This record gives sequence, C-alpha cells and structure tokens, in this order.
Amino acid sequence: MAGGLESLESCLEQHIPPEDLAEVKRILYGGEARKLNLPAAALSAAQEGDFELQGYVFEAAPEQLRRPRIVRVGLVQNKIPLPTDTAVAVQVAALHRRIEEIVEVAAICGVNVVCFQEAWTMPFAFCTREKLPWTEFAESAEDGPTTKFCQELAKKYNMVVVSPILERDEIHGGTLWNAAVVISNSGAVLGKSRKNHIPRVGDFNESTYYMEGNTGHPVFQTQFGTIAVNICYGRHHPLNWLMFSMNGAEIIFNPSATIGTLSEALWPIEARNAAIANHCFTCPINRVGTEYYKNAFTSGDGGKAHHDLGHFYGSSYVAAPDGSRTPGLSRTQDGLLVVEMDLNLCRQVSDKWNFKMTGRYEMYADKLTEAVQPYFIPNIIKE
Amino acid sequence: MAGGLESLESCLEQHIPPEDLAEVKRILYGGEARKLNLPAAALSAAQEGDFELQGYVFEAAPEQLRRPRIVRVGLVQNKIPLPTDTAVAVQVAALHRRIEEIVEVAAICGVNVVCFQEAWTMPFAFCTREKLPWTEFAESAEDGPTTKFCQELAKKYNMVVVSPILERDEIHGGTLWNAAVVISNSGAVLGKSRKNHIPRVGDFNESTYYMEGNTGHPVFQTQFGTIAVNICYGRHHPLNWLMFSMNGAEIIFNPSATIGTLSEALWPIEARNAAIANHCFTCPINRVGTEYYKNAFTSGDGGKAHHDLGHFYGSSYVAAPDGSRTPGLSRTQDGLLVVEMDLNLCRQVSDKWNFKMTGRYEMYADKLTEAVQPYFIPNIIKE
Repeated sequence: MAGGLESLESCLEQHIPPEDLAEVKRILYGGEARKLNLPAAALSAAQEGDFELQGYVFEAAPEQLRRPRIVRVGLVQNKIPLPTDTAVAVQVAALHRRIEEIVEVAAICGVNVVCFQEAWTMPFAFCTREKLPWTEFAESAEDGPTTKFCQELAKKYNMVVVSPILERDEIHGGTLWNAAVVISNSGAVLGKSRKNHIPRVGDFNESTYYMEGNTGHPVFQTQFGTIAVNICYGRHHPLNWLMFSMNGAEIIFNPSATIGTLSEALWPIEARNAAIANHCFTCPINRVGTEYYKNAFTSGDGGKAHHDLGHFYGSSYVAAPDGSRTPGLSRTQDGLLVVEMDLNLCRQVSDKWNFKMTGRYEMYADKLTEAVQPYFIPNIIKE
Repeated sequence: MAGGLESLESCLEQHIPPEDLAEVKRILYGGEARKLNLPAAALSAAQEGDFELQGYVFEAAPEQLRRPRIVRVGLVQNKIPLPTDTAVAVQVAALHRRIEEIVEVAAICGVNVVCFQEAWTMPFAFCTREKLPWTEFAESAEDGPTTKFCQELAKKYNMVVVSPILERDEIHGGTLWNAAVVISNSGAVLGKSRKNHIPRVGDFNESTYYMEGNTGHPVFQTQFGTIAVNICYGRHHPLNWLMFSMNGAEIIFNPSATIGTLSEALWPIEARNAAIANHCFTCPINRVGTEYYKNAFTSGDGGKAHHDLGHFYGSSYVAAPDGSRTPGLSRTQDGLLVVEMDLNLCRQVSDKWNFKMTGRYEMYADKLTEAVQPYFIPNIIKE
C-alpha cells in the first residue's frame, strides 16, 4: 500500500498492553494528550465528508493576574480532489469546495484560527520543473480569488484564516513567491509571510519557481493570539523558528508538503523541538495522498522517469511548549485536527525552563556575525 | 519501580508484530539501526561487570575521492557506585575503578573516542545547594587526578577520552566550572570545553555553583574525527549546537544528567534535531539511577523536603545527520553504547538537504543583533 500504516499512534494503541501504554506515551509524547469533546454534529459531518476529525486539549495552570487565554486552532490536511490534468480553474474550484466543507466543521468545533496546507489551491507540481500550467495557480495575496474566498470564510465564521498559496506579486514584475496570507476574523487581510528557506532536495525543485522570502519574520496579533507562519522547509532551520518567537509568536504554523522516503523520520522531531526551544506551540501540517502528472520526470537520483513524487504522509500534529504533543492525523486520509490550548502555558514553561533567559543571544549574534565572513577561521584545536 | 520501563525500544520490540515493527521503526527512528558485531570477550566482560553493552553502525555511500572515515565512539552511562556520604576520595576512586572496567570493554570493542557522563566523578549534588563536601569533587582540568587517570587510559588504549568534570580553575581565583576535558589518544590534554548554558530549573540549582562557560565553541581535531562537547542543558539551545557545527564538529557529545519527570519527553527530540539541523552526529549521554542525600532539600515546587532529585533515566543514544538514530541504552542500568559511523555521511547529507547552504545566516546575524537590543521593537502586525 502506498501509504503504509494508518498512523503510528493507532498502531501503538492497538498493540502495546495498557500497563505499558501510558509509559510509552509519556516517553514518546510527554503523556497522554487529553481528548477534546467535539460536537456530534461535527463528527457526523466529518464522517459524511469523508475526513478524519480529532480534538485535543492543552491546559495551563491557573494564574492570579491573567485569565486563561484559550484558543482553538484547526489544522487541515487534504488530498487534491481532481486529477492534475484537469483545467486549472476547475481544480481550484474543487479545492475551494473541499476546504469550505472542512472549515464548516471547524466552525462547528469552535475553531478560532484555521490553517491550510502549503500551496493548498494546487497540486504540489514543482517536481515537474514545468512552468505551464502550474504557474497559473499563482494568485495575488491581497486580492486574488482565493484570498477573497478566505475573507468570506473568515467573516462568516469569525475565524482567523491562514491561507498558504503560490503568490503572484504583480507590483514586482509578476514574481512568484511561496506565501501564506493571514486574514483576520473581521475578514481583513492582515498581511502575508513568505517562505524564508527554499529546498533544492530531490523532487522539491522549488528554487526553479521562487526565491527566498523577503518578508522576514512577521508575527500577526489576532484577537485569539499572536501567530506566525513558518512555511515547509523553514522547519529545518532552528533560527527561522527562533526569529518568529523573538517577535512574539505564541503559535507558529508550519504548512508543509513532504513525502515519506524523504522526511518522515524528521517530521516528529523538528517542529516539536521548535516548540520546546522557543516556549511556544507549533502546528506542522502536511498534505496527504499521491499526485500523478501526465509528463514523466526524473528525480536527480539516477532513477527512471516517473509520474509522481511519492506519498504525502499527512500526520499533522500540534506540539506544546512543555514538550508534549498530540497524536498525528492519519497518514493517508484528509483530516481536521482541532486543538484547544491555553496560551498561558507558553510563559509558564518559559519561566520554568528559562531557555530564553539563558539563551546568551548577544554572544550568538556576535559569533554568527563572525562565522558568516567569507574568511572566517573556525575555532579548531589541534594537537 | 523507580525506573519504570527498561527501555522504550525493548517494549516496542516485544509487543509490535513483525509486519508493523519495521514501519514503526522507520517512522520513529528513521529505520532499523544496523547491529554492530561485538567481540564475545567484550560481551562476556560486560555481563560480568554488570553493564549493558550495545553496538550499532551508521554507514555512508562510497565516494571516489574520499575513503570512508570510520570511527567508533563509546558512550558510557553509569550509576554512582557508593552512597553520597562516603568520603570524597573514596567515591572518586570507586568511580575511577568503574569507568576503568567499562573503558577496558570499550577498548576490546575498538572504540576510538569515549565520552563519560556529565560530572562523572561525583554524585549530581547540585540539588542540595550545599557547598561542602560537593565542591571538593572539583579538580584542575589540566592536571587533576581525574585528568591524569584519563591520560593513562587514553595512552593505554590509543583512545580519545572526553572527561566531563567539575573544574576548579586555580588561576582565576579558584572559580568552579562545569567542563569537559578532551584528551588525545596520545595522552596529551587537547583542551577543555565549558558548559555554555546553566540551568535554573527545579532541583538543577547549578547557577549556585558555576557560571556560563567562557570557552566558546571549541572543536577538537583528533586523529579519528573532529569533535565537540555540548554539556547537558546546552542541548536545549539550538544556537549552541549550531556554533559547534559552524566550527566544524562532525560529532557532538552531550554529556548530561537529567531526570524523568523533568525532561524525558524532550530527550529523544533535542539532540536528534541538532544532528538533523547541523548535518552531524550527536551523542547524548545521561546518567542512571537515583542518588540519595543525607540532608533533605526542597525543590521550589511547594513540595515537601526530600532526599533525592529523582530517577536519572539513562537512555543514551546516537543520532545521525540523516535523521536516524540508535535505540537508547537502558533506562535503569549502567551501559556502554558502541557506535561505528562513517563520518562521510555528514557531508553527503549536507549536500542532499542543504540546510547550511540555505541557512541565510547573514540575515540571522543581523536579525539577532537587532533582537538583543534592550529596546528592540518586534515585528508585530495588528489590524
């Protein structure tokens, strides 16, 4: 089977005896994630809509001077509903419909901030290295049809929407970017965050299409919390997470598109490490399924030309600042993960572990400034 | 039982059916670690000496211009053999004997570089906040009895020895440091690396005893590879790992002392993330067992005074640059983990994933320099 295991967590649940399971979960996940009670209407709508729906809660201790700051985030992972050689406009429309369906359920679940997967309005076609028709999926971040669609959703459901798209930047010569548009629950476009690090790995030929982002590390202060978006490959760069955190992000979304053979062993590690290191919540999202292309392409590994880049393994999850995490969504199915979190946990963990306080960032600013010099002399001690 | 599960990995092996186990290991560990064949003499000596002995191999692809650069590292985790109220010199002597026994087995296994746990010549007494007798365990890094002991081992077995101790710095007013002494296989002291980040977490009252290290991020070019030492709490700081890597470390040891309730969910994440992010091998080592103190102490959590800081959960492991890792040593027993690695894997993975090339470190040097200013204005976007 293309996808393999349905999920690691369901496999552990099925086979590890109860007397050991709690300990296994403590070591692997920081404990048993508390289940969130979801409305029956949402569960049945998800079943009808053929997508997984899971809910979890992260709590914080009560404080005297701050009330709990409860927010519910929704992470959406999905397959492309139509073949990649369908007309562009028809593919986009089908994706809009699919997302509309899932966001409706998110709304029933009381989600305040929803985030979709990377380049959600299109197949992840960068493996082909072809320009047309794929670049036709690019849209204006400010007023493209997808942004307008998301603005409607945001207003209708009083929900912040994070919409990662392929962006066409008309005012700079029509340049393409990989960007996430952040839309306030009022429906206003708050701004955008462009992908800071671009892969050149295997089939991820993305530097053929767009360059490293120039929007820095913006953080969006929404009614529900201060959020940021670290797109896909940027999860491999600890400094990228750090700067979002330095700017004050308490929730960092990581909309992604990545496949099993390349990165599955890294997936549970990197975003979770970022949550720990930066005392914040991180929300990695990966698409699911296998996408086929009419024209065969090679992968730079000496192998034969082929028509797909492999299986996107889903497994979207949320990691908390205390090192715990939710189970992952399915490796093979569309899904919506609803996670309620008390943002007070961020400062509580920070005050306990003190990684920021003990970070010695002045030293590293100096060291890094030295290290990037072309003739930097490393500190190597020889006999 | 104080320790709980013997190890996460043995629990998975025991209960997950074979048809799923390979997939579980691929997702959790990046695949089944290849076992290293160890000499029968070593296995029986370990059994006799009552410590676990495990061996694994990480391979790299053959190259045309570089020969494989094979190195065997040894990670040692151990309990303190005597009660903490035994005379200081007697405790140190017993630890020397225990380590001698384990290093002899490491030598039979062909280990080239061995590393011991943090502050290995003493109980991890910083929880007490008492000065005497604990500060009497401090020694000169350059010519203390423990360094001399390690020099003998290094010469006898042609082995690089990494010896983390509590250091007494006589030429700077007798200051204490938490340091690792690196001894060449020739027996010469190559230098030392002091702990860069000091915890103030629960019972880890270490800032009462020593300050943040001032040796920067030295890297030691040994006959067997270029190594560095990131001591304990420094594993929570991604920039610390980064700077060791920037200076050229291909193997970063992380001698530690940490307990289950505090950090066990973080343990498999942070050093492994560092191996991935920096295209190098990382070797986290944790002590085992529970250490009891005559005088009760409190933990700053409102709880009652008590005589131990909890169970050190061992679980030492090695993580590779490709995201894979070995199983952990026991959570409860002394152990020696022997890992053979081809250091060529570091550059091979770097050339594949390109995290260094795409790191945009110039941008981060600037950003970090701005961010550390007292009146830094974060990049926050509001409606």
